[in-house]
Amino acid sequence: MSQHQITLMAYSQNDLIEKELPELGFPMGENWNVAWLNVSNLLEGSVLSQMQQLFEVHPLLREDILNLRGRPRISEFDNYLLIILKSLSYDSEQQKVIKEQISLIVGSNFVLSLQEQYSGIFDGVRKSLRSPKNRLRKMGPDYLAYELIDAVVRNYILTFNKFGHRIEDLEPLILENPTPENLQTIYHLSRQMTSIQATLLSMREITRTLQKGHIEQIDDSNLIYFRDLYEHLARAVDLVTTYQDMLKSARNAFHSSISNHLNHVMKVLTIISAVFMPPTLITSLYGMNFDEIPELRFHWGYPATLVVIMVLVGIMLYFFRKKGLL
Amino acid sequence: MSQHQITLMAYSQNDLIEKELPELGFPMGENWNVAWLNVSNLLEGSVLSQMQQLFEVHPLLREDILNLRGRPRISEFDNYLLIILKSLSYDSEQQKVIKEQISLIVGSNFVLSLQEQYSGIFDGVRKSLRSPKNRLRKMGPDYLAYELIDAVVRNYILTFNKFGHRIEDLEPLILENPTPENLQTIYHLSRQMTSIQATLLSMREITRTLQKGHIEQIDDSNLIYFRDLYEHLARAVDLVTTYQDMLKSARNAFHSSISNHLNHVMKVLTIISAVFMPPTLITSLYGMNFDEIPELRFHWGYPATLVVIMVLVGIMLYFFRKKGLL
Amino acid sequence: MSQHQITLMAYSQNDLIEKELPELGFPMGENWNVAWLNVSNLLEGSVLSQMQQLFEVHPLLREDILNLRGRPRISEFDNYLLIILKSLSYDSEQQKVIKEQISLIVGSNFVLSLQEQYSGIFDGVRKSLRSPKNRLRKMGPDYLAYELIDAVVRNYILTFNKFGHRIEDLEPLILENPTPENLQTIYHLSRQMTSIQATLLSMREITRTLQKGHIEQIDDSNLIYFRDLYEHLARAVDLVTTYQDMLKSARNAFHSSISNHLNHVMKVLTIISAVFMPPTLITSLYGMNFDEIPELRFHWGYPATLVVIMVLVGIMLYFFRKKGLL
Amino acid sequence: MSQHQITLMAYSQNDLIEKELPELGFPMGENWNVAWLNVSNLLEGSVLSQMQQLFEVHPLLREDILNLRGRPRISEFDNYLLIILKSLSYDSEQQKVIKEQISLIVGSNFVLSLQEQYSGIFDGVRKSLRSPKNRLRKMGPDYLAYELIDAVVRNYILTFNKFGHRIEDLEPLILENPTPENLQTIYHLSRQMTSIQATLLSMREITRTLQKGHIEQIDDSNLIYFRDLYEHLARAVDLVTTYQDMLKSARNAFHSSISNHLNHVMKVLTIISAVFMPPTLITSLYGMNFDEIPELRFHWGYPATLVVIMVLVGIMLYFFRKKGLL
Amino acid sequence: MSQHQITLMAYSQNDLIEKELPELGFPMGENWNVAWLNVSNLLEGSVLSQMQQLFEVHPLLREDILNLRGRPRISEFDNYLLIILKSLSYDSEQQKVIKEQISLIVGSNFVLSLQEQYSGIFDGVRKSLRSPKNRLRKMGPDYLAYELIDAVVRNYILTFNKFGHRIEDLEPLILENPTPENLQTIYHLSRQMTSIQATLLSMREITRTLQKGHIEQIDDSNLIYFRDLYEHLARAVDLVTTYQDMLKSARNAFHSSISNHLNHVMKVLTIISAVFMPPTLITSLYGMNFDEIPELRFHWGYPATLVVIMVLVGIMLYFFRKKGLL
Repeated sequence: MSQHQITLMAYSQNDLIEKELPELGFPMGENWNVAWLNVSNLLEGSVLSQMQQLFEVHPLLREDILNLRGRPRISEFDNYLLIILKSLSYDSEQQKVIKEQISLIVGSNFVLSLQEQYSGIFDGVRKSLRSPKNRLRKMGPDYLAYELIDAVVRNYILTFNKFGHRIEDLEPLILENPTPENLQTIYHLSRQMTSIQATLLSMREITRTLQKGHIEQIDDSNLIYFRDLYEHLARAVDLVTTYQDMLKSARNAFHSSISNHLNHVMKVLTIISAVFMPPTLITSLYGMNFDEIPELRFHWGYPATLVVIMVLVGIMLYFFRKKGLL
Repeated sequence: MSQHQITLMAYSQNDLIEKELPELGFPMGENWNVAWLNVSNLLEGSVLSQMQQLFEVHPLLREDILNLRGRPRISEFDNYLLIILKSLSYDSEQQKVIKEQISLIVGSNFVLSLQEQYSGIFDGVRKSLRSPKNRLRKMGPDYLAYELIDAVVRNYILTFNKFGHRIEDLEPLILENPTPENLQTIYHLSRQMTSIQATLLSMREITRTLQKGHIEQIDDSNLIYFRDLYEHLARAVDLVTTYQDMLKSARNAFHSSISNHLNHVMKVLTIISAVFMPPTLITSLYGMNFDEIPELRFHWGYPATLVVIMVLVGIMLYFFRKKGLL
Repeated sequence: MSQHQITLMAYSQNDLIEKELPELGFPMGENWNVAWLNVSNLLEGSVLSQMQQLFEVHPLLREDILNLRGRPRISEFDNYLLIILKSLSYDSEQQKVIKEQISLIVGSNFVLSLQEQYSGIFDGVRKSLRSPKNRLRKMGPDYLAYELIDAVVRNYILTFNKFGHRIEDLEPLILENPTPENLQTIYHLSRQMTSIQATLLSMREITRTLQKGHIEQIDDSNLIYFRDLYEHLARAVDLVTTYQDMLKSARNAFHSSISNHLNHVMKVLTIISAVFMPPTLITSLYGMNFDEIPELRFHWGYPATLVVIMVLVGIMLYFFRKKGLL
Repeated sequence: MSQHQITLMAYSQNDLIEKELPELGFPMGENWNVAWLNVSNLLEGSVLSQMQQLFEVHPLLREDILNLRGRPRISEFDNYLLIILKSLSYDSEQQKVIKEQISLIVGSNFVLSLQEQYSGIFDGVRKSLRSPKNRLRKMGPDYLAYELIDAVVRNYILTFNKFGHRIEDLEPLILENPTPENLQTIYHLSRQMTSIQATLLSMREITRTLQKGHIEQIDDSNLIYFRDLYEHLARAVDLVTTYQDMLKSARNAFHSSISNHLNHVMKVLTIISAVFMPPTLITSLYGMNFDEIPELRFHWGYPATLVVIMVLVGIMLYFFRKKGLL
Repeated sequence: MSQHQITLMAYSQNDLIEKELPELGFPMGENWNVAWLNVSNLLEGSVLSQMQQLFEVHPLLREDILNLRGRPRISEFDNYLLIILKSLSYDSEQQKVIKEQISLIVGSNFVLSLQEQYSGIFDGVRKSLRSPKNRLRKMGPDYLAYELIDAVVRNYILTFNKFGHRIEDLEPLILENPTPENLQTIYHLSRQMTSIQATLLSMREITRTLQKGHIEQIDDSNLIYFRDLYEHLARAVDLVTTYQDMLKSARNAFHSSISNHLNHVMKVLTIISAVFMPPTLITSLYGMNFDEIPELRFHWGYPATLVVIMVLVGIMLYFFRKKGLL
């Protein structure tokens, strides 16, 4: 759809080259230290074959980048580092979390980022790069990679906030009013959370690997940033786990609450039956057509029957209150 | 049943010998680097005793190959590597996953594959071998083993797809309509998934061992392929775990939903009882045959009774609505 | 709100300087070994920029201190150790556990403590410091850090005691009387405990790190104190786990108990129906207006009917007792 | 009971001495390499004190052998290896798994096996020993120990088969017909499986230790046999775990199924009540004895009433069908 | 209460000094190798300050001994080893397990044991010591410590036996008769078992540490005794875990059983309603007072009605049997 899918930002502390490219390639000249090539709409165009020309690409790497349903992972090759990430966003119409794959190839003087579709997720990094005073301009491709991953991770938190408050309010709501709609909400949110959790766990493992410091492309002085990234993801994983626990608790609360309601309904039914069945038997008794039912002849027969019925109902209610059913 | 159960493919980059053999044996001459012997219908014929003649077979290895109910495993012997795999396929008539055992014996210049029954699972590998330009022709027996295992693993994914969509759609379906048939479907799919999971977990362990790089028969330069295999299996295990979670969730959804329905049914019953029992008592009252029931003589007695009954029903319904039962 | 938010206590064995400071800074002179700067109401004023002037603060550290929703953690920097703690207190009005963040920066001759809000949690430590004979006065900043963390940890136990007894009494109470209010109490306490547990687990990990002895700022001779701290937290974690188990058990007890009650209610309903429906049919039978119902003409018809009804009820009750329903 | 409880088999490749002994002791002469002493009915007679005389027995070892309720375990002593096993058998009358303890003491040229009671479990090994060509005759006491343990392990599988099929068929059966008898079967099988699992897990640990190769009494060339034993036990443990999962699943199926049935029963009850209560009210209405009920005088009153009742029932049934209750 | 709370037993192979002491102290002379000081009623008297005088006591150790609610643990100090144990006993009146703390301080030539309250738990050890031939007399303080811990551990087993049989019989009992009393028994036993388990797990960790052999106060030749202790505790932990599983299973059995009962009760109710409601409608029909109900005039009207009612009931019962409700 979009014709220009490749953007280049090549920079040193003093210079910045920013342009859209028709195809992959590095800028001429030597006034840059780091080149960042971003490809959006990965699947359109011939980006991968151009990639092949620029640097020797291992056939498995190619497959990994194209397999959009894979897990986030990290692989070290001879001259570059491949990091496959998943970004999350929330589609508020479908009420669904949407995953997109972002691949980073980090070399000695470049970063190549490949997005599944166009998204504005890296706009903040671009803005930072344009300011000559920003730390990014002084640093190498590893720090740029950090900033790109950080942009993805920060987006996770935003996606969370779309769910968080709804989940926190769920349990008390359900204890009061266990409707089928609330139940469906629990299950819907659960499914979204399971999907998020899988991504976060893999991402946490990736940053754990990155911050260990045995990777050639990452300078030891920058490890502290990846450590911070790891801490952020560990925190996010904790939060998701907490939300999962809350949803499980809400599901339990639903069951408890519905048992309560059922119990209540059954008590009402039992009391109604107990209160109305015995009087109905009595009235039915004196509705019989036997020739000789002496009571029917008594003057006070009818009022006496009414009194008996009332006493009976009273006894029943007293008994139920005593047994704790009322 | 099939008389020719042994196929040989012996190849180097330039040459390929392909034929069916009456019994196990390597081709004469030296124009091949790797010989692949495939035995289907392992249990018929005298393959194992021929194997004994070709190379010294440890008695335990023989037992392992014949024990078709064993677990996938890997054993290193002096001159060869034994890999016992399980292939999965889906029998759509019985709606069951079927496991078959495939044993690979990988030596320095040969691969011997033993299939429990005839299946076309390795046809793709055969096709690749026939093309002189295919990477397979340049590589050793370890790469051939990789391709054979890869064929088995790719088949897993196909078997999954037979289940995946049914499982994903189950939970919302059940929340709406918890029929006993849906319940049986859940339990049936669960049993299939448990069976698949056991196989995948063992297979993942095998590839984890293979990609570690301490095995003589596997060249270090090819480890990257086994690592990729491991990644694929790890992904498949993740997927099965997700499906298991979905089935568990569907089972929970079934219980939640049936509780909901029960609650609903009981409310209906309670309301019916509450609405009809009190009026029945009143009508029964005036059906008594006492000589003196003054109301029966009133001109407006009958319509008044009807009004009382209607008011009573109205009060009942109002009360239920207020209590949240309606 | 409070204008003086910074307190200084600088001390050696013989001297103690204690004052409130308008801004961060160390005292002149050399008659002190350790300086403790405490900042309450961290977010008001320009404390962080003053911190920047006193010692080089890494930008990530700054962010960690200000992020009040982060996890307890520990980070080693070149010249100081950052410990981020959470203190717990119980707001009896809202019946909620309240978390506050406390950051400790431990250097070679100072401790800087940053509190989210003003609280008296460190008053005990201040008191100890004022006494010249107290061990604190002889020791270095690592021991001061120990005492500060210990003050926070001791506070956890106090917060627990607010819950402990209520939780221990819950299960027997619920087995007897499973009211919806009790259910809400269980879920409320569960939520509080989950929140406490997350904090304690992180705190335990921090003290585990501290007692290992590879941290420059902590003298090996003082490791025993941090080991003791670790033991205390391990004990606290055990206690919280036990409380969680008790709450889970109480939730199970609720379900068991409500099933029991439902069963009991249904038995009552069944018995009532069984006892009153058959006699009602009989009386209804003799309430029919057929011209010829011979029984109606019998002299003993009515008393015989009464007897039949009583026998029937007797049989019913006997049958229920035999079947274990009564 | 049996007077001869000690059997000796002493053998080299060419010779075999087999006899029953009145008391523990090794044969004279040097024409044997390995002596196997088997004691059945350990608790009768003075075997243990004779053992003391033959070789120095550590007091704790003695206690371990006599404690028949202990766990399977392995202990290394200076001159021998103690292996305590449990054999399983199935008592088909009591429908119970029965455990018996078997202790093996493996020395440099002997194996002493102590059985709790007489059983034919080692008959197969005896038969093998009698054949001069059998591998056993060439090997040392470690291989004999392997064969003895293997005999015990093979017996486990036989014991399993008594349960396996019953468990596999349980779940579908229960989904169709959740009777209390089926429930008791589940719980009975569960108890047996739990008992088996405990034994298998300990046995697996023992073989894991044996196959590691740091034990003096086991020759490295024989480790492959113990590795095979470990594989067998790992497989058996997997199988038991699968059976446990199946039983858990069957228990879940029972609950699901009984909920289904309850729901069904309640629907029937609700429909019956709904269909019969309203007509009963109407008929009761016209059974009242008011002097003036105009409808009673109508010529078409009775048939009209019948029509009204039928229409009412029809409406009810239509409503239930629409609400999904029918 | 008791005035003499300190007992001393100082011994060598030939000599034994046994007396009650007014305060802590070692005996004069050199005719003893090991001195065992036992303090019961720790909290009364000034034992701890005397302890301070005898040997340098670390302030944290003092705190640990006095904190009677702490966990069992082990700490190594310069000249002694501190072991904090919990003994269990069963108070049959309160039906509760009671924990008491016992601290052991093991030095190079002494053991100091501190009991929370007076108990006869060490009487067996005292008796052994009095016999000159007992192994104890030849051994050092480490072996004495072993015997003391062993006495505590043996007591656990006794405490278990109070529960074991009741738990084993619970499940079958509950499947037959799920009374609320049985439910309360399950929960009561569960609470006791949870309490026991916590103690045993800590104790197992302690013995695991002791048997590892890096502790100065324990001679390597005695490690085998501590290993045996560890085995005993591992066994006890297994047993408790089994009991916990049994209780969980009993709780499940309760739920299954009560669902069964509920189902049964509801079937009875449904059948009663179904059998009596339709005949009641018919009788009610002919109880109406319409002027013209032709059937009422028929000679066979009444008996025909009776027949219709019976046929109706028959059809109902047949239908229920077919639907599996009867």
